[in-house]
Amino acid sequence: MNPVVVSASLILYLIAICQGSGTDIALDAKATLLHRIDSLNLLIYTCLLTLTVLTIWVFKHRRVSWLHETGLAVIYGLIVGAIIRYAGSTNQVTYIDAHPDADTKYNLSVPPDIVRFHFPDKIQISSGEAPVPNKTYAYSFRGEIVNVEQNEIDLKATFDPEIFFNIILPPIIFHAGYCLKRKYFFRNLGAILTFAMVGTALSALVIGSLMYGCVQLMPASLAASFTFLDTLYFGALISPTDPLTVLAIFSQLKVDVNLYAMIFGESVLNDAVALVLSGAIQNYEKRYSVDGGFEITAFLAAIGDFIGIFSLSLLVGALIGCLTALMTKFTHVRDWPLLESALFVLTSYGAFLIAEVFELTGVVAVLFCGICQAHYTYNNLSADSRNRTKQLFELLNFLAENFIFTYIGVSMFTFPKHHFDPWFIIAGFLTSMLGRAVNIYPLSFLLNLGRKPPIPMNFQHMLFFSGLRGAMSFALAIRNTVSEARQAMLTTTSLIVIATVVLQGGAATHALAYLRIPTGQGQNDENEALPYRDVRSPADISFDLRNLDSNQSPNSDRASDTPHGNGDGGGEKARLARLWGAVDSKLLKPLLTHARPPLTETLPAFLRPLGRILTTTRQYTQSENSLRRTDSDSDLCIDEPQPVPTTIDPQLPYNIRNGYGNV
Amino acid sequence: MNPVVVSASLILYLIAICQGSGTDIALDAKATLLHRIDSLNLLIYTCLLTLTVLTIWVFKHRRVSWLHETGLAVIYGLIVGAIIRYAGSTNQVTYIDAHPDADTKYNLSVPPDIVRFHFPDKIQISSGEAPVPNKTYAYSFRGEIVNVEQNEIDLKATFDPEIFFNIILPPIIFHAGYCLKRKYFFRNLGAILTFAMVGTALSALVIGSLMYGCVQLMPASLAASFTFLDTLYFGALISPTDPLTVLAIFSQLKVDVNLYAMIFGESVLNDAVALVLSGAIQNYEKRYSVDGGFEITAFLAAIGDFIGIFSLSLLVGALIGCLTALMTKFTHVRDWPLLESALFVLTSYGAFLIAEVFELTGVVAVLFCGICQAHYTYNNLSADSRNRTKQLFELLNFLAENFIFTYIGVSMFTFPKHHFDPWFIIAGFLTSMLGRAVNIYPLSFLLNLGRKPPIPMNFQHMLFFSGLRGAMSFALAIRNTVSEARQAMLTTTSLIVIATVVLQGGAATHALAYLRIPTGQGQNDENEALPYRDVRSPADISFDLRNLDSNQSPNSDRASDTPHGNGDGGGEKARLARLWGAVDSKLLKPLLTHARPPLTETLPAFLRPLGRILTTTRQYTQSENSLRRTDSDSDLCIDEPQPVPTTIDPQLPYNIRNGYGNV
Repeated sequence: MNPVVVSASLILYLIAICQGSGTDIALDAKATLLHRIDSLNLLIYTCLLTLTVLTIWVFKHRRVSWLHETGLAVIYGLIVGAIIRYAGSTNQVTYIDAHPDADTKYNLSVPPDIVRFHFPDKIQISSGEAPVPNKTYAYSFRGEIVNVEQNEIDLKATFDPEIFFNIILPPIIFHAGYCLKRKYFFRNLGAILTFAMVGTALSALVIGSLMYGCVQLMPASLAASFTFLDTLYFGALISPTDPLTVLAIFSQLKVDVNLYAMIFGESVLNDAVALVLSGAIQNYEKRYSVDGGFEITAFLAAIGDFIGIFSLSLLVGALIGCLTALMTKFTHVRDWPLLESALFVLTSYGAFLIAEVFELTGVVAVLFCGICQAHYTYNNLSADSRNRTKQLFELLNFLAENFIFTYIGVSMFTFPKHHFDPWFIIAGFLTSMLGRAVNIYPLSFLLNLGRKPPIPMNFQHMLFFSGLRGAMSFALAIRNTVSEARQAMLTTTSLIVIATVVLQGGAATHALAYLRIPTGQGQNDENEALPYRDVRSPADISFDLRNLDSNQSPNSDRASDTPHGNGDGGGEKARLARLWGAVDSKLLKPLLTHARPPLTETLPAFLRPLGRILTTTRQYTQSENSLRRTDSDSDLCIDEPQPVPTTIDPQLPYNIRNGYGNV
Repeated sequence: MNPVVVSASLILYLIAICQGSGTDIALDAKATLLHRIDSLNLLIYTCLLTLTVLTIWVFKHRRVSWLHETGLAVIYGLIVGAIIRYAGSTNQVTYIDAHPDADTKYNLSVPPDIVRFHFPDKIQISSGEAPVPNKTYAYSFRGEIVNVEQNEIDLKATFDPEIFFNIILPPIIFHAGYCLKRKYFFRNLGAILTFAMVGTALSALVIGSLMYGCVQLMPASLAASFTFLDTLYFGALISPTDPLTVLAIFSQLKVDVNLYAMIFGESVLNDAVALVLSGAIQNYEKRYSVDGGFEITAFLAAIGDFIGIFSLSLLVGALIGCLTALMTKFTHVRDWPLLESALFVLTSYGAFLIAEVFELTGVVAVLFCGICQAHYTYNNLSADSRNRTKQLFELLNFLAENFIFTYIGVSMFTFPKHHFDPWFIIAGFLTSMLGRAVNIYPLSFLLNLGRKPPIPMNFQHMLFFSGLRGAMSFALAIRNTVSEARQAMLTTTSLIVIATVVLQGGAATHALAYLRIPTGQGQNDENEALPYRDVRSPADISFDLRNLDSNQSPNSDRASDTPHGNGDGGGEKARLARLWGAVDSKLLKPLLTHARPPLTETLPAFLRPLGRILTTTRQYTQSENSLRRTDSDSDLCIDEPQPVPTTIDPQLPYNIRNGYGNV
């Protein structure tokens, strides 16, 4: 328990001696130093991101395809992390042991928020001649110190893990929801939901069980530190996929849109599923079990937790999205695009915060808020706001994504709570591959029993190959690093993320070629290749399910499930989808947007007066045609957050239509 | 020193008893609770901003002019702050007194960063039956407790003041620099610099001296707590103006652009001046003086500090701006607008961070970085990036500005460190008005001696009237609230900001009418009313100084100061301005942008080979004409961050040219 005297503190000490003006100045200098260190940390990441951006440009310019930008960000991060670790001077923290007053009245079993620390009190400080005056300082609670000997808390170039959940992930997830190609997403909804919901749970269970088995075979010290719930938690955090690299390549090579939609949709949803799942496992752990045992009622309660939190979060996000749609529909805020964009951003972030306040999952809420904003609100926005929100979230997503991958690289060296355990790492790699296989192949087999067209074998291989791990796995792993087991999980997760992003990401082009997946398809070709081509012309590319009933007579029942001529396998699922499509096109779209047919035509007769109130003049007056074009999601959806060269001459003056014409 | 047992803690306590599983779960629950409170705080501000946005829309829709959006944000903030204060349940922090181990070896005069607190140690905890296990917790340093009795540290809906300097102010200041109307700014540079530099210093000195006099007349307890440096610091922080409201109204009513440029330019620069000035005063205080006395050498050193920090920060910002211009000129990153925008944002934030790392002023750096980015880099950007960066910073600025004004309102009630002292508040109001008068009238008189056309009296009154106080004053005041003197300053500053923003902002339209300042001028009228109309045609509206020499023969000396036929008062200032204009148009513009004439024409003969390397093919090939249009700042500069109605039909599909054509 020797106090650590280090460089920075020494300088402060010298300053304090030289100027002789006491502790206050030294404290100010210390605060300044800390601020500079914070700024330096941020500057390191800013420079790394700048470097990444410039290198991406070089790669794109020279058409390098064996390394993607995320892989690049990770590699730069690793290099800089190693430099910081081995070259930088240490700036260790100073600490002291303290005990409460013996006569203190305090009757909570939790430690206090603030410790009022009397310094220097009884201890002798040899600071030059001037005696250090006795003062009281406030110290705020930070956490438990598990291993008192291991006291080098060195937090170089690291951030609070909660930053990932509250600042970095929301824009990424919102962007994914906002830019989801809803048309293809809903066409492949069955497969996507199966892979994302059932598949992720299955994968978590398989990885958790196998890891538990592996751990039991290892040295006793390791085996004792992992409970079954620990390994199950590892299974949950390593299951979500983040196939950014693969999708970027898909988009460049114009791979089959259905395959694209399945991989993208699954990766968006399984992030949400894994987050809620890991939360449920932690709740189970906290509430019912201290020895890692298994109780059936507790297990059922955890499943209830999972379903409840997921659906309530979904509801919160969807409601906020619909509320924004109503606000933008019934006010003329559209006339002031800046106000409108601000409203859009604020309500979307509000969805995240509301979910967090009610102990739901903000990330899930923000995902479904994004989907609703794209599906309803986007249609009410002014052209300027559409452009602005799309570009804003695209940029935020790009920066956030590259930041997180850079951070994964840097933290591999600088994060103090890594625990390298070769057996656990090897087992982690093998089981995470197995988990992905268990997710894809058996479920594809089951899906193919009822699916037309079936998922071909080479698509299945590609789905398996796209199982890169990314931001969500890392964020979940770094959230809790109290125990050695958790630290081993973080190390393994970091390595799996780095390996899959760099190696699998780099090999994606070759995998596509090896699996003979056709590339270079155009939008129209695909439209014609789809089973829906007989329903409507290729020009009419509105959301499919929604329009199934839109040409019917206005007085048909809104729960109509009249069978149509498309061959989507029929059965309960298709009926539900058609029901939803009818509700959406007859009730929600006319209510929340300026879409036709208006509510006055679709509502049953006794609700017509209400319908009249909720219908805008624009809904009456605009033609069916102009609606169709606005309504399409083809002008909204970005397939991937990748920049693609434009051929616009940048020297041309670009007068932006935002109304700033005056003065 | 009784421990405070409050609602939240009680709940935690009950949970801990009921479930009997110890401190860990209670701690987890506490962390969850804190996270929920943080989310709730953010949600409050998000809702307030949403409400503000919607109300602004209503006001604009109904053409309400007696209250501006910033005033609105402040009022909403006040209402919600009052509700939180008087209706919300308190969630007070728990604390305990602690002493260091008597036998600890620790020889720094500064208190340690971390206190390792042993709990419950010797004290008796009566938590149900289960004994609380002895554990060690880490507590991190927070600050000195001055008044041990006053221990209700209640931080409802408040944020760390450093957030303002590191997150909220940079985008506001950058946006101001990026959207500065440089043409009019440079035309009135003399007046702007005089008002911003000399005026702010003068105002700070006058306010500081008068306040010191006032304080001496007040009750002894108050007089003793203020040193002259304290009141001087108050003078520095209350001097910068923030005439958002006034400028918004100017822009709507199309007031004279020269008056607009003077008010806007001054308010942008005096924020930077006041920040550096207050820093210099604090440094002086820290280094040389503990009793508030005055030393001439220390005073000169403080002036040196001021000049050094200001000019170095300016240099850092300008260099980063030029570096970005070079990067965008010599790479083809322009082909990928997303990468380009990311690069732009990252380097601009990098300028802030670099200045902070080197203990300069990030806000000053970011301001001049913004001006350089607009002047050079903007010309190299692709159309998409121009649009995107402009819209991004516009939105960020809008949100940041409204947040800060909402926060001023809320914190009036919830910030725990307010100190209401009626005498100090009254004195503050009077002296801040006097300080503004001392800034404007004598300096205008001096300026008018050499200025053609002179600043008319009604413009001077309007300059005086535009002396609203805003974000920078508040941010400086809330930064340090350790002593009672500083707390009284915060309270006074908050009240002055609220009063000026709400009252002066609301009365601005009437003031314009009362002072008979002509409104409704168009861009072309103004151009013709300016003394430069004989130099060039109204269509050629590029930056004036820059183009003074651009039509001369290519081999003229780049330090040319040939007198021109415009009547800008002549003398040293005009010669310097012309010199700078020549350097800018002959060296910097061709070097940093694709502007013509290329360096091969402007450099002296022996530097031509170097010039050839630094000239792009585009510079050789493009016509003079296309350049001129791009070069103008009329398509970049936004007069004010106010949304103005557009006449675009939002139902029209808006295909954004960003290159996402595939799939």
